[in-house]
Amino acid sequence: MNSGNSTRIFFNEVATRDGFQMEGRFVPTADKIALVDELGALGYARIEVTSFTSPAAIPALRDAEQVMGAIRRVPGVVYTALVPNLRGAQRALACAADEFNIVMSTSQTHNLANLRMTREQSFAQLSDVVGLARERAVPVNVSLSTAFGCPMEGDVHPDEVLDWIRRFAELGIAGVTLCDTTGMAHPVQVQQLCTRVLQQFPALGVTAHFHNTRGMGLVNVVSAAEAGIRSFDTSLGGIGGCPYAPGATGNVATEDVAHMLQCMGYVTGLDLTRLIAAAARLESLVGHQLPSQVSRSGPRLTRHQPPAGFEEIKARAQARGQSPLAGGKI
Amino acid sequence: MNSGNSTRIFFNEVATRDGFQMEGRFVPTADKIALVDELGALGYARIEVTSFTSPAAIPALRDAEQVMGAIRRVPGVVYTALVPNLRGAQRALACAADEFNIVMSTSQTHNLANLRMTREQSFAQLSDVVGLARERAVPVNVSLSTAFGCPMEGDVHPDEVLDWIRRFAELGIAGVTLCDTTGMAHPVQVQQLCTRVLQQFPALGVTAHFHNTRGMGLVNVVSAAEAGIRSFDTSLGGIGGCPYAPGATGNVATEDVAHMLQCMGYVTGLDLTRLIAAAARLESLVGHQLPSQVSRSGPRLTRHQPPAGFEEIKARAQARGQSPLAGGKI
Repeated sequence: MNSGNSTRIFFNEVATRDGFQMEGRFVPTADKIALVDELGALGYARIEVTSFTSPAAIPALRDAEQVMGAIRRVPGVVYTALVPNLRGAQRALACAADEFNIVMSTSQTHNLANLRMTREQSFAQLSDVVGLARERAVPVNVSLSTAFGCPMEGDVHPDEVLDWIRRFAELGIAGVTLCDTTGMAHPVQVQQLCTRVLQQFPALGVTAHFHNTRGMGLVNVVSAAEAGIRSFDTSLGGIGGCPYAPGATGNVATEDVAHMLQCMGYVTGLDLTRLIAAAARLESLVGHQLPSQVSRSGPRLTRHQPPAGFEEIKARAQARGQSPLAGGKI
Repeated sequence: MNSGNSTRIFFNEVATRDGFQMEGRFVPTADKIALVDELGALGYARIEVTSFTSPAAIPALRDAEQVMGAIRRVPGVVYTALVPNLRGAQRALACAADEFNIVMSTSQTHNLANLRMTREQSFAQLSDVVGLARERAVPVNVSLSTAFGCPMEGDVHPDEVLDWIRRFAELGIAGVTLCDTTGMAHPVQVQQLCTRVLQQFPALGVTAHFHNTRGMGLVNVVSAAEAGIRSFDTSLGGIGGCPYAPGATGNVATEDVAHMLQCMGYVTGLDLTRLIAAAARLESLVGHQLPSQVSRSGPRLTRHQPPAGFEEIKARAQARGQSPLAGGKI
């Protein structure tokens, strides 16, 4: 795998939306605001702050207005929010969201299960959202769920994904996120779909969104980056959902992706040390161990102390010269 | 990332040695034997059955003779064992191990901490083991720990790794395993070191051994495979140790690596369905949740049932025609 050669990669943090909506515990509004404020200074391109969904449907994010209205906006960071329909769009506009993220599934069964609508019904509803956003000059990104497979239908044909992108592109959206909603993507598939999307839609911003359900989250990020993707959804601590794959971990973790890409010579703009500190605070907010790895292990060159008695072991060994001694542990 | 194009990859299972030696619970001898017998039929190239270390040093593997003597040998599978010294070599010979795996660290501090010897003392001791093995026509593989970095010293220079390989190659060993003992390797480093080793030692069998400590285990496997490595150490369920990186997960999991490589078009020879069943039994043997992912989530095309009430949701949505309805969850 070749060096990233200082290629810039942009991060879209989804912990406060995609992450918190899956948590059993309600994260207090003040903590949400403090977290967004903390993350705003760490080098993200975008932060998906919250969701303007019905508070009855997603009580975890029932404080969307309060959060969006109170966060401190760092210049250069895009503060986006999920917007499901016209009502949500009006709420998001009232809070001056910088961008709308709209969502539907490329698989009919997943869309029905998740949104209780056919894909055509979703498209009609989201078309209205895009229309309003364009009137108000707010850019729109569409997140296409199950773009790499549906947990109920199986493989989703890439032509179908490309066709949905085309229909949204014709509405005048700014970007598309290819979502591997339940961790079905594999690196060869990622390379193929990302290459086609980038070739056919050169004017769209393209983001990739992977889950680590089958351990392939980070390798899919590298595959997408090699294919030319420059923007990724990641979640601090790796929190976030996967409702149809029980027991599995969530989104790829911001700190794990940033650490890997930095090791490889990509430029992330993210402050890894402060990300790890933020993940530690997030862990206490959600009240359970995070699935991320680097927040526990530290960056690769983290130094550990030799075991107790090491100096004595060393002195004894050196005193023996070349002659070995059995008894060590292997 | 390109297709594996039917390239054959060979697996060396290390759960019963590297895995069990780190477990708190002693796995009963009969269960060890049953597990090796079960795994023998699943398509591995090699199984590292046990370790002929001092039973006092590693009580978890104090039954090495009993296990090695009772397993059912499947033709074509190499049953190897860790051999630390001449005494261990004699024990392994008495049990007819097909191959010896000898171990030392490329970092002086890690070697002292782990083996209580300087690297030169280890090399002298292991040279005697290789000498005896050659007399008895038993092939030897050397596992070089910390080849991608030492948790106490930091980076290990690749020239140093290559120099240790050269010294062992001059003794007449058959193969070398590049061990990322505490999960410090990253994909670009893996590509560079593996390429150099394969170029300079075309006659050696080269295996790579990765840990998932920082989430990069699977991406390092792909990077190594792209560089030409065809053999990997993996551990069923991802069990196995990382004593100097607390809280971190262990070896890359056999089922996760096999699943990924199969998705990508490599040929693994492994029976994934039976691997997942074996991992479920392993989980009950060790008494804790395994770090592997695919054993929990199933392969990527595992079908899940739609949620309760789905048919009604679908019928209602279809009855509405094109008109959307709010209220779904996102």
